[in-house]
Amino acid sequence: MLEPGVFDDLTDAESKALAQCRHAVLGTERPMRLDCGVELGPFRIAYQTYGTLNADKSNAVLICHALTGDQFVGDSNPVTGKDGWWDSIVGAGKILDPARYFIICTNVLGGCLGSTGPLAHDPANKQSWNLRFPVVTIADMVRAQAALLDHLQIPDLFCVIGGSMGGMQVLEWAASFPKRVFAAVPIATAARHSAQNIAFHEVGRQAIMADPEWKGGDYRLHDTAPERGLAVARMTAHITYLSEQALQRKFGRALQNRDALGFGFDADFQVESYLRHQGSTFVDRFDANSYLYITRAMDYFDLAAAHDGVLAKAFKGSATRFCLMSFTSDWLFPTRESRAVVHALNAAAANVSFVEVESDKGHDAFLLDEPEMFRTLSGFLQGAATARGLRSPR
Amino acid sequence: MLEPGVFDDLTDAESKALAQCRHAVLGTERPMRLDCGVELGPFRIAYQTYGTLNADKSNAVLICHALTGDQFVGDSNPVTGKDGWWDSIVGAGKILDPARYFIICTNVLGGCLGSTGPLAHDPANKQSWNLRFPVVTIADMVRAQAALLDHLQIPDLFCVIGGSMGGMQVLEWAASFPKRVFAAVPIATAARHSAQNIAFHEVGRQAIMADPEWKGGDYRLHDTAPERGLAVARMTAHITYLSEQALQRKFGRALQNRDALGFGFDADFQVESYLRHQGSTFVDRFDANSYLYITRAMDYFDLAAAHDGVLAKAFKGSATRFCLMSFTSDWLFPTRESRAVVHALNAAAANVSFVEVESDKGHDAFLLDEPEMFRTLSGFLQGAATARGLRSPR
Repeated sequence: MLEPGVFDDLTDAESKALAQCRHAVLGTERPMRLDCGVELGPFRIAYQTYGTLNADKSNAVLICHALTGDQFVGDSNPVTGKDGWWDSIVGAGKILDPARYFIICTNVLGGCLGSTGPLAHDPANKQSWNLRFPVVTIADMVRAQAALLDHLQIPDLFCVIGGSMGGMQVLEWAASFPKRVFAAVPIATAARHSAQNIAFHEVGRQAIMADPEWKGGDYRLHDTAPERGLAVARMTAHITYLSEQALQRKFGRALQNRDALGFGFDADFQVESYLRHQGSTFVDRFDANSYLYITRAMDYFDLAAAHDGVLAKAFKGSATRFCLMSFTSDWLFPTRESRAVVHALNAAAANVSFVEVESDKGHDAFLLDEPEMFRTLSGFLQGAATARGLRSPR
Repeated sequence: MLEPGVFDDLTDAESKALAQCRHAVLGTERPMRLDCGVELGPFRIAYQTYGTLNADKSNAVLICHALTGDQFVGDSNPVTGKDGWWDSIVGAGKILDPARYFIICTNVLGGCLGSTGPLAHDPANKQSWNLRFPVVTIADMVRAQAALLDHLQIPDLFCVIGGSMGGMQVLEWAASFPKRVFAAVPIATAARHSAQNIAFHEVGRQAIMADPEWKGGDYRLHDTAPERGLAVARMTAHITYLSEQALQRKFGRALQNRDALGFGFDADFQVESYLRHQGSTFVDRFDANSYLYITRAMDYFDLAAAHDGVLAKAFKGSATRFCLMSFTSDWLFPTRESRAVVHALNAAAANVSFVEVESDKGHDAFLLDEPEMFRTLSGFLQGAATARGLRSPR
């Protein structure tokens, strides 16, 4: 079925994604009011599910993805052909086992893999939104997810979990819909985006907008793409996802396919070649305008500001069980950011556990094979599942 | 006097700079052999001096500038109209007082403020070098400075001092010309560029080269300039010069000339506005190709590699007195990099003192008002001057 306005002019990536996942068209009867004041509707949310909702609807887990993530958390990404981005955690016999949980992962509002974002057509005038798409917030993304749960008739979630921007959504869920969240796992995240992180995002956006192929955001109209700008944005961001130690250990000053310095501007060093590769592969799977919107949503995130400047107020009276994790070498979302959330949760007398995981892998550690993270998560979920009355599979 | 080939087609900035400083044309009789194998000559070195060389030529101080620095260390920059970049240290009554010392600061080889670099004409064919200029190294910059000292008939230096890339030159001076350096002060620097630092440089270069106005480096031929790319490069680099704490203290999430979020892509936050300003003012004073060359020189710097992989060998038998400083919040050239140099100097039984200065200002601290740095430097120089037999002024 083609819903008017929300299925026009899909990109190849969107078509491939929507063919391999579910979607819902929401806000048809009543549009959703965004933080910016715009009434959005209808809009599409693309999502993937794993497992089956149990009879008492008590086993739903929502996984929230990070800046450049997507809904294909536990199965092959139809655009890149790569494994799901949290394949290590989601799957048969793994911590989030579809035999036990009904797992949902949505492409965020503003995304570019099937959910409505700047790529979509404005139903009002049949034109691509591009930069006329309203700026969305983390709270808007969460509202859209809540609308999806309403649509699926799922009253509440056993667990909301995510890292980085996914963790921001987890915190927003706990603050905005406390009764719908039994357990919350915000990983490698913060309750507000720091000045340094806003600065790095701004550099990325400037790189995109400096690319003449961007054309004020209307590149699809002109059949161009700001690939070079987007690649530079990705390269900058990618450095922030890794620790200095990890880069040194992985690459150091090793040369790329050569025995001596080339005395030129080719990629002499492996780290240069690696970064260029990160940039060039990213543009094949991500939309530049979507990158602008999602980074902006992260910049705008400030949970305390929305609660009279007092973070603890965001969690007042919360019955949610929290488990926070940070990584020692993560300098993008350092441990002190998680501690600030833990302090606020303590001040709100919430149920919270916190683990700082020893790792030299930087921010990306949350996506990688980190046994201490797996143990912590497994133990926390087991306890929460018991408290929720969820039976073990088999 | 117009020397053939080395005064053709000056930029406005070069003309202004050369009108306000001295210069020497070197390599006229015998070209200088660069690390890449190219024989360079004639070439021009622009330099500024303060004070007077004493009768026994024992009071010469060479100050080495950082990536985007210049020769105007202690007097007004004729391009920007701003105070000298180390005005806090160089001047009457200050630590480096022209009444006591003969202070020299050269624009580095490869620079864009009067010394020969990619902007210059290749004397062989009267064409602008642009990207055909040979890739120079820190050692080449130091060789050019040594050639200038020969030209000025100054046998040796009382002190070589500099921060960041300036510190690399100091280390190279001590290693290559130990007998010409009585005292050496490398500040906030490293004996080799790290993988993370190479990565940040590569992002900056990619931003410049992605700008269509760059035109393979031949933008002057086309009367264009890759200003947007260069601005993005500067913005990225600028973040690395500041600490996360300094950005948070200075800007936090404060908004720029507005009471509420703008829900758009203008500079909502002060930190965005500040960064954009850093980018846009930089392009008025710096050349994009020069930025490529100088970052490359830093990437290539690896003092141990040039000495069988053993850093201590670089300083074997050195009689130079060393004073190193680092800053606690500098994450671009963190303290461990200075410690590695100190360990090597100790292993070489050199005379070394080291101070880690407590500061939250990040890498840029070396350019700022840091009383502990001033005290350390003042004490060290006083001791060295006494040992050298330099009398106090007046």
